[in-house]
Amino acid sequence: MTDHIAVQDTYPDDFSHCFGCGRHNTSGYRFKTYQAGETACTEYSPAPYHTGGGESAYGGIIASVIDCHSAGSAAIFWMRENGMIVGTVPSPRFVTARLEVDYIAPTPIGPLQLTGQAQEIGERKVIVTTELRGGGEVTATGRAVMVRVLGG
Amino acid sequence: MTDHIAVQDTYPDDFSHCFGCGRHNTSGYRFKTYQAGETACTEYSPAPYHTGGGESAYGGIIASVIDCHSAGSAAIFWMRENGMIVGTVPSPRFVTARLEVDYIAPTPIGPLQLTGQAQEIGERKVIVTTELRGGGEVTATGRAVMVRVLGG
Repeated sequence: MTDHIAVQDTYPDDFSHCFGCGRHNTSGYRFKTYQAGETACTEYSPAPYHTGGGESAYGGIIASVIDCHSAGSAAIFWMRENGMIVGTVPSPRFVTARLEVDYIAPTPIGPLQLTGQAQEIGERKVIVTTELRGGGEVTATGRAVMVRVLGG
Repeated sequence: MTDHIAVQDTYPDDFSHCFGCGRHNTSGYRFKTYQAGETACTEYSPAPYHTGGGESAYGGIIASVIDCHSAGSAAIFWMRENGMIVGTVPSPRFVTARLEVDYIAPTPIGPLQLTGQAQEIGERKVIVTTELRGGGEVTATGRAVMVRVLGG
């Protein structure tokens, strides 16, 4: 089951200008993350010019999508843990304290699927692990330590 | 002492299309990394639309510049270790196996200075640590495991 409301579309207006995932940033990527059962999912297709060389995406776009996907996933996991439903209240906003990316194989430029899982859900800290698939294979994994913005 | 030749300008043509640092990518950031004594330095100013919110840069652009800076730094350190001078031969090309970024404080949108140091220099693997300064303070640190492309 994938929820049809992207968590980024429920961030408060003041937190919706991020180049990666802000719905109000007209220059940005506008990554969208959805609850999917116990996991959280983001899909994104890099542009041909996001090459690192040839047909593979450059490392920065992989890190960027894992970063914002982790922020969205943290919000989804925290809300679920606290009995809240995405779309019914403004989402909490998480920022990144630490990001780790392992580049396992070249990531083909084309549709990418990211699946996030909660490794830890605390009152302010959520740790998200991510598998990124391109061309049907896991080409990168991520681990992000996310911290909830108070009042956000 | 800062060398005046950017290592990215000495990559072979086939490895110069990266969105982050390729001199042939007209859509990209064209990050430039220079030898500076025992260290390697990159400077970059994010655009106002690279916001994560307000006056701070979003996490993905920080990860992107640390990633390409680490690839450039790895090439510089490996060449120095092997008695080569940047600009006199085509540079070796390194790709990222693992990237770690610690976001210590919000990074202001404005001129950023990255300084890389070699933690380990092997025959194929170079580990680069980075301090990123914005507004005169270290706002993020990085550690990247870089692997040399054979034939690159």
